[in-house]
Amino acid sequence: MIEDKNQQRTQLSDLGEFGLIDHLTKNFKINHSSTIKGIGDDAAVLNFKKQVVVTTDLLVEGVHFDLSYMPLKHLGYKSVIVNLSDVYAMNATATQVTISIAVSNRFPLEAIEAIYAGIETAAKIYNIDVIGGDTTSSNKGLLISVTAIGEVDENGVVYRNGAKPNDLLVVSGDIGAAYMGLQVLEREKEVYKVNPNNQPDLEPYTYIIERQLKPEARKDIVKLLSDLDVKPTSMIDISDGLSSEIMHLCTQSKVGCDLYENKLPLDPQVISTCEEFNIDSTTVALNGGEDYELLFTISQDDYPKIKANPNLSVIGFIKEEKEGMHLITRADTKIPIKAQGWKNFND
Amino acid sequence: MIEDKNQQRTQLSDLGEFGLIDHLTKNFKINHSSTIKGIGDDAAVLNFKKQVVVTTDLLVEGVHFDLSYMPLKHLGYKSVIVNLSDVYAMNATATQVTISIAVSNRFPLEAIEAIYAGIETAAKIYNIDVIGGDTTSSNKGLLISVTAIGEVDENGVVYRNGAKPNDLLVVSGDIGAAYMGLQVLEREKEVYKVNPNNQPDLEPYTYIIERQLKPEARKDIVKLLSDLDVKPTSMIDISDGLSSEIMHLCTQSKVGCDLYENKLPLDPQVISTCEEFNIDSTTVALNGGEDYELLFTISQDDYPKIKANPNLSVIGFIKEEKEGMHLITRADTKIPIKAQGWKNFND
Repeated sequence: MIEDKNQQRTQLSDLGEFGLIDHLTKNFKINHSSTIKGIGDDAAVLNFKKQVVVTTDLLVEGVHFDLSYMPLKHLGYKSVIVNLSDVYAMNATATQVTISIAVSNRFPLEAIEAIYAGIETAAKIYNIDVIGGDTTSSNKGLLISVTAIGEVDENGVVYRNGAKPNDLLVVSGDIGAAYMGLQVLEREKEVYKVNPNNQPDLEPYTYIIERQLKPEARKDIVKLLSDLDVKPTSMIDISDGLSSEIMHLCTQSKVGCDLYENKLPLDPQVISTCEEFNIDSTTVALNGGEDYELLFTISQDDYPKIKANPNLSVIGFIKEEKEGMHLITRADTKIPIKAQGWKNFND
Repeated sequence: MIEDKNQQRTQLSDLGEFGLIDHLTKNFKINHSSTIKGIGDDAAVLNFKKQVVVTTDLLVEGVHFDLSYMPLKHLGYKSVIVNLSDVYAMNATATQVTISIAVSNRFPLEAIEAIYAGIETAAKIYNIDVIGGDTTSSNKGLLISVTAIGEVDENGVVYRNGAKPNDLLVVSGDIGAAYMGLQVLEREKEVYKVNPNNQPDLEPYTYIIERQLKPEARKDIVKLLSDLDVKPTSMIDISDGLSSEIMHLCTQSKVGCDLYENKLPLDPQVISTCEEFNIDSTTVALNGGEDYELLFTISQDDYPKIKANPNLSVIGFIKEEKEGMHLITRADTKIPIKAQGWKNFND
């Protein structure tokens, strides 16, 4: 929300497509032995000893992000993270990404450089090779399409469809924070429109804003589960909201579940901000989305291995399919779980 | 350019993201043993015995296509083809694609179905598994991002950087037709704006228009070269124009070349349409782009194997790097080759 009037602006047309790609990718290094050839040919060449997982996600300006509060570097970072999260949700190791960007002429080179700086940071932190992509113009706005690739032992893959009755339903980290961060950012945007000189005090919201602008993918949970010798029976990442993801797991596994309201892991900032905004924190936890935590099921036999871990919360039990999917409230009433999640196509 | 006033329109918001993806992909079948899990989890799971090639391309409305003359089914088809072409340019077999589409609410379900019908047709003809993707809304326009995956024996990969002095420069099919097809379509669009009742006679342009609207990727050439026991020393596909691709091959291989104007393979429709538009056909062949033919180099020892083949034209010789890259004209003058190709970022 702070505008730098002296930004350097280099026209993209000065470089051309190939000059631009060379310029943006010159710092990328190859770290994986599975990457035989990265950027610079018609296609990248990879060599895997294991099974390969592939996932892709589009981020569209005005739909998935708002540049009035999303710094471009964070956007680049987040565009990688949301894809890595899907790779980890297969219990796989993320190894490569391709990055395609469509961008209008209103963006100077420095803007694309900032996006790539975020991509580079994510690639370093998560040990990913950037192996290709496409950069083109658009008539309007900015769009980032990322494809992530990972590898996993044949017996290691965890699908969405393996949950069994009596399994425990487990979630990593805490949920609802990214959604509440977005509410704060949207409010500050409205304040800024009225009074651009207002200096907002965002100190009470640092955690939830960071969860929205700079989410992390739970690579550490995949390692932790491996170290604990726990193989989930099913797993999914939380991008669209907990209730939507629970419904995916249960539907694909042909099971039902009981989810306990009092077990939902909420950060204190989520609770206090929900009070401030007069929103029910359970509704936020169920439908917020963009948490990029992992939701998975484990056999009860594995419970002793995970129960002491502060990164993991048991939030429910898998039931027979005919028993349906329910939230058990603090008042001990049963409410059917409904997905709200994704509504991009609504007007 | 013919509008059907009775088009059926189903709002995308009636389906939601998951309903939409299920609806669009229900007919896709898995044909490759390397596809362990396709659509329906956080990521697809693949298992390759060979090396893997990965490539990605974005097609943006108003930049790469114009819906006033590009039928949506053809667009879906072409979006797959342009990516398969890159896979074949590695001398690989294309096996899987992911498809991501961003689309504004002005498009009804039937429009997306038409795009997917084209994708399905391409997948059938080229024997490709559609293994995943993302469908989201956009504020404006239509954008398709495709990632294609292929497999190839470790010794079979052909890069851009293996051309050697005295190698022959070879191109498949003919070139310049897609560009001239675009010129005809652009002209008819202007005529239509002035007089919507005009019925254009496009009969003299059927080949060049089809090359623009429904290009094919040269899977057959990869098989042909294998059958002939010819392994190119370098290869690239012609997406940006012959001169641009020659410069990529020569620069990456650290060689020069002589290209012969009188050897450029031109279809008679390209020559006649160039005359009609008063454009030099050599300029079109060099800079037109979107031909999706393969440009490659072979050892002179392999010349007897290819010389009788009507699909292949020897168009030049590789020289030492210090001799530079030149076009040898019909008048036997030497002109340095310059890339014009891609100018999307120019205003």
